[in-house]
Amino acid sequence: MATSSVTVSYRFHESVTRNALRSYLSEFISTFFYVFLVVGAGMSSRKLMADASVNPTSLIVVAVASAFALSSVLYIAWDISGGHVNPAVTFAMAVGGHISVPTALFYWLSQLIASVMACLVLRVFVVGMHVPSYSIAQEMTGFGASVLEGILTFVLVSTVYAARDPRRGLMSSTGVLVVGLVAGASVLAAAPFSGGSINPACAFGSAAISGSFSNQAVYWVGPLIGASISGLLYDYVLFPSLPISQGIGL
Amino acid sequence: MATSSVTVSYRFHESVTRNALRSYLSEFISTFFYVFLVVGAGMSSRKLMADASVNPTSLIVVAVASAFALSSVLYIAWDISGGHVNPAVTFAMAVGGHISVPTALFYWLSQLIASVMACLVLRVFVVGMHVPSYSIAQEMTGFGASVLEGILTFVLVSTVYAARDPRRGLMSSTGVLVVGLVAGASVLAAAPFSGGSINPACAFGSAAISGSFSNQAVYWVGPLIGASISGLLYDYVLFPSLPISQGIGL
Amino acid sequence: MATSSVTVSYRFHESVTRNALRSYLSEFISTFFYVFLVVGAGMSSRKLMADASVNPTSLIVVAVASAFALSSVLYIAWDISGGHVNPAVTFAMAVGGHISVPTALFYWLSQLIASVMACLVLRVFVVGMHVPSYSIAQEMTGFGASVLEGILTFVLVSTVYAARDPRRGLMSSTGVLVVGLVAGASVLAAAPFSGGSINPACAFGSAAISGSFSNQAVYWVGPLIGASISGLLYDYVLFPSLPISQGIGL
Amino acid sequence: MATSSVTVSYRFHESVTRNALRSYLSEFISTFFYVFLVVGAGMSSRKLMADASVNPTSLIVVAVASAFALSSVLYIAWDISGGHVNPAVTFAMAVGGHISVPTALFYWLSQLIASVMACLVLRVFVVGMHVPSYSIAQEMTGFGASVLEGILTFVLVSTVYAARDPRRGLMSSTGVLVVGLVAGASVLAAAPFSGGSINPACAFGSAAISGSFSNQAVYWVGPLIGASISGLLYDYVLFPSLPISQGIGL
Repeated sequence: MATSSVTVSYRFHESVTRNALRSYLSEFISTFFYVFLVVGAGMSSRKLMADASVNPTSLIVVAVASAFALSSVLYIAWDISGGHVNPAVTFAMAVGGHISVPTALFYWLSQLIASVMACLVLRVFVVGMHVPSYSIAQEMTGFGASVLEGILTFVLVSTVYAARDPRRGLMSSTGVLVVGLVAGASVLAAAPFSGGSINPACAFGSAAISGSFSNQAVYWVGPLIGASISGLLYDYVLFPSLPISQGIGL
Repeated sequence: MATSSVTVSYRFHESVTRNALRSYLSEFISTFFYVFLVVGAGMSSRKLMADASVNPTSLIVVAVASAFALSSVLYIAWDISGGHVNPAVTFAMAVGGHISVPTALFYWLSQLIASVMACLVLRVFVVGMHVPSYSIAQEMTGFGASVLEGILTFVLVSTVYAARDPRRGLMSSTGVLVVGLVAGASVLAAAPFSGGSINPACAFGSAAISGSFSNQAVYWVGPLIGASISGLLYDYVLFPSLPISQGIGL
Repeated sequence: MATSSVTVSYRFHESVTRNALRSYLSEFISTFFYVFLVVGAGMSSRKLMADASVNPTSLIVVAVASAFALSSVLYIAWDISGGHVNPAVTFAMAVGGHISVPTALFYWLSQLIASVMACLVLRVFVVGMHVPSYSIAQEMTGFGASVLEGILTFVLVSTVYAARDPRRGLMSSTGVLVVGLVAGASVLAAAPFSGGSINPACAFGSAAISGSFSNQAVYWVGPLIGASISGLLYDYVLFPSLPISQGIGL
Repeated sequence: MATSSVTVSYRFHESVTRNALRSYLSEFISTFFYVFLVVGAGMSSRKLMADASVNPTSLIVVAVASAFALSSVLYIAWDISGGHVNPAVTFAMAVGGHISVPTALFYWLSQLIASVMACLVLRVFVVGMHVPSYSIAQEMTGFGASVLEGILTFVLVSTVYAARDPRRGLMSSTGVLVVGLVAGASVLAAAPFSGGSINPACAFGSAAISGSFSNQAVYWVGPLIGASISGLLYDYVLFPSLPISQGIGL
């Protein structure tokens, strides 16, 4: 990864090497399948239930699909692009200096195009169903919903940082499973209130195809702030890299 | 595994060694149990609900059974036959040159016979229930359904390739779990539209015993194409083997 | 473990060493908690639904509880007693010569007493609820139900053998999770037909406390036969220990 | 960790080092998110169902949320604070001498404040919903409910001890997943009878914000006793550290 002393032109150059292009493809593929499976599960439960958006069984369907899908696509992308699959994770990585800003922008582009295309494929091939967009409960304020989404993105990014931390040793093998579990639990806890997206790409793609961009800010502002705080807290306070002589942990 | 320079007769010989026969037995056993558990779960939910095919709880029953069953049977077969348990995976492995064509044909034979026998055992011992066959929603075209099944098989094969990739290091220990999760998420996203088989053997066996082969092409054409593209993309573009000096990933 | 050349008196002596007593305690504790959680989940869903035994949501409750509970208690007992927690697994291990017959008998005793005590504790402390016993569907024959239970025990024991096989390498870390998943899938596939016990101890304990031993043979004959065939097939045919020069697997 | 020969003042000093403060922060963060996700899932299912407290689908929602959330937050805190996230676990660790009493008190403080704050955030931002407190079934005695909660905490602490035991080798990588599964199974087995908290912090926080402290003793007495017995049994009887020459396990 680029250190902060390199110039912008070098950074841009670094962003278009063969390995970088592979990373963008990997982010594209993984985000495409994540959105395809999660939004597909939402459409699937709407097909079976007229009142899916207020039905608790549908809540389980979408939560389990989110958990299973996120773990799977992270597993594919993990050693190629780092397995972000989420613009909020990419944002936190850029804020923390783990990836350069140009690379982060290409990641965002890959993620957003992938999400729009996944929703488009669902729109075209699943006849007679609308692509649902994320929405917040009538009594919720946009601010409150964004806070909820931000808190959930905070814990998601904390698990991503923990999963990539080499000091986790053997436990790094189960990291992608754990990140998926956070996504599932977040849907269960927040979907009826704030929508439970915790992934701005997912919210963007479904909004683009369903044509309803209201509340879009909810799924960007909170998550980007929550993700950044989480990443910085992990790196500088919660579990900073220490010289070995000082020891780590309690 | 055979290199492409060996002759057909050697390849056939290689396909009937003791280890190869063990692999076929392993594919037979694992496919038998996968189909037995997944189709059994479908019959189980039909027993409890007259309207199981349009009931969201039944969707969860079949999805969870698919995920749990696939992880388990892959775990058994993984170090013996490679853990295909799916003609589409075997097809991708043959197209990519990872197994020889005669071996692939014996794998297919083992998988299809196993699936038919699993459905037959269910038909005989579960009194008073029919073996359900996979079907597509009335408003779906066969082409659209096959595209859906193909997309889902693509991600399944991507996780299989990732799980078998030695460069995944410690994460290879959770590979079979992740492949199972894809199967579960696929059922949740696609079952009410295209049936959610993503395994041609499963669709073939239940069709053979229920006597309804309509739409059988849906469960073969899309998955075989999706699986092949996925395998080739992984090997040649997404995560090709590189000389160590060039580095891997971002 | 004892080789077959030792005498019966030595074998008995070996069965009462300090480590052996720890193993029995470990089997007792793990079986107690497995039965407590699984039968407890059955009572829990009956408390919430008058018609729990024919309700698909209850099927999911018991299946998920079985999977989660079995993985957990196996994890505790794995390095102490080997993690049988099931008389059918112990039977297969004795038939295959992996443990001596006296040790197997003490394992059975620990498992059966644990199961009876778990059901007794539930009976005493959960006021106003009966302990449910396993039962088969009205239209099923006892023979057919026992065949189903035997088939499911076969796959359970296959995963146990795979999980304990040192040749599985890194994958041995996820073995207990996979064994739990088989238990969950089995409940989903078979509970409405044969009861879905796949653990004779579980069936025995709930029968002892509910006072209904009808169909008890169903939960012993099929599972013991299925478990033995599975263990012998694994050891001698599917994945026998080979001299290294011959290679393993395909 | 401190040996028993150090003085109280040294112990207190040890409790306020930089690493110790990081541990308290880690316990705070992990407990905050655990309570946020679990209580949030309870509110979520109440939003969708007027009769959530007697609905089996709600039981699944809360159980899956508990399992997913606990695994995730333990993963974050595991190498920092040891991953207690539960006053009963901390109590058992203090009773067994694994952490000093002042450190345990700071852990409790972090956990309780985190739980209250998580419920407060839910109360403020989820408009129009009450924070539910844990309650026991009308026909249950407080004593019986506390016994149930204590038994479930026993198995939770056993898995925590097993997961931290270095003798578990490769299996230590899946430890946090297994501890989460116990929490999920416990909710399925006990929620309709004793509430299924198995975490005094969770019960305390929701009681503090909902203003209903009745039955609070149920969620403290049983779990603290069950946790202590479990820890001592593991350390001294079930799997004590042996000189290597004596061997371990059967």
